[in-house]
Amino acid sequence: MAYPGYGAAPMGQPGAQQDPMYGFFTAVAGQDGQISADELQRCLTSSGMSGSYNPFNLETCRLMINMLDRDMSGSLGFNEFKELAGVLNGWKATFMGYDRDRSGTMEPQELQQALVAMGYNLSPQAFHCIMRRYSTNGRIGFDDFIGCCVKLRAMTDNFRRRDTAHNGQANFGYDDFIQVTMNF
Amino acid sequence: MAYPGYGAAPMGQPGAQQDPMYGFFTAVAGQDGQISADELQRCLTSSGMSGSYNPFNLETCRLMINMLDRDMSGSLGFNEFKELAGVLNGWKATFMGYDRDRSGTMEPQELQQALVAMGYNLSPQAFHCIMRRYSTNGRIGFDDFIGCCVKLRAMTDNFRRRDTAHNGQANFGYDDFIQVTMNF
Repeated sequence: MAYPGYGAAPMGQPGAQQDPMYGFFTAVAGQDGQISADELQRCLTSSGMSGSYNPFNLETCRLMINMLDRDMSGSLGFNEFKELAGVLNGWKATFMGYDRDRSGTMEPQELQQALVAMGYNLSPQAFHCIMRRYSTNGRIGFDDFIGCCVKLRAMTDNFRRRDTAHNGQANFGYDDFIQVTMNF
Repeated sequence: MAYPGYGAAPMGQPGAQQDPMYGFFTAVAGQDGQISADELQRCLTSSGMSGSYNPFNLETCRLMINMLDRDMSGSLGFNEFKELAGVLNGWKATFMGYDRDRSGTMEPQELQQALVAMGYNLSPQAFHCIMRRYSTNGRIGFDDFIGCCVKLRAMTDNFRRRDTAHNGQANFGYDDFIQVTMNF
C-alpha cells in the first residue's frame, strides 16, 4: 500500500471533496446533490469558468445539461459536472486561441477552422448552416460558440450511437428523431 | 371570364399590394423585398401578430425563417411571410384557447393536449422531452410555445421528406443530419 504522503488524498476520504470545484458544486446543488440549469449557470459563474467572457446564458446551460444528462432527469451530479467542466475548458482554450484581440468574438471562418481542428468533417453546406445559425452581425460570441460546440457534440454522439455499421448512415424512427432533436 | 366585381382585386394589379400585411412587410423589407430575422421581429411586432403577448424574441424569429426558407438565404419574401403569418395565427388561436385566464402561459399538460390536437402522435418520453425543453418554472410562455411549434413542424417536415417508404423510419447521412439539426 502506498504511503499517503504529501499530495495524496487522506485515506478514507472520497476524492471529490478534495476537488476545488466541489465547493462551488455543493454550494449550489444543495441537499439533492444535483444541479439544474439555473443552478449550473450560477455554479459556472461563481467558479469563473467563463473567465473574462460574459456568463453563460440559461439556454446554453440547459443544452449543457442535456448533453450529459443520460437519465433525462434535467440535472447533473458532481461527476457529470466535472466532465462538463473539463469539456468546457477545452472549448474555452480553443475560443481564446482564435480571439487573439480578446474582443470576445471570433469570425465565421475562424469558427469553421476551429470545428475542423476539433475533428469535424463537414460539407460547406453544413458549415454554412452552422455559421448562419451561430453568428450575430457576422461575429460569433463566446456563449454562441459554446452553444454550437454543445449541440454539435450532442448531435454527433446521438448520430454515432445509431450508425451501427459505422458507415456514416443512421436510421431513426420518428419518435426517436423527435426526442433527439427537440431536446436541443 | 368572371366580372371583377365587389371584393375582387382590380384587374392587372398584383394581389399582394392589396394585402393589409403588405404595407408592414415592405416597410421593413426595403429594396431587396426580403426580410431577415431582425426585420421579421419588427414586422411581426408592428403588425400586431403577437397581440397582447410579448413580442417574439429574435431566436424564435430566426427559427421561423429557417422553417420556411427553402433556399437557405436566411430571409423570407412576401409569399413566405404570408404563409408564416397564416401558420402563426393558427398557433396563436390554439394558445389562446388554453390560456383562458390570459396569464400569457399554459401548463405542461395543456401543451401536450395542444400538440395532440394538432395531430402529433408522440410517446410519453417525447412529450416529456418537449415539456422539459419549453417550460420555465413549470409554465409555457407564448414565445416558447411558438418556438416549440416551429421546431416540431420543421423537424417533422424534414423527417417526412426522408421517410420515403412512409413507415415512420428515415435514413440520414451524417452531414445531412447535421444540416437539419444545427439549423434549428
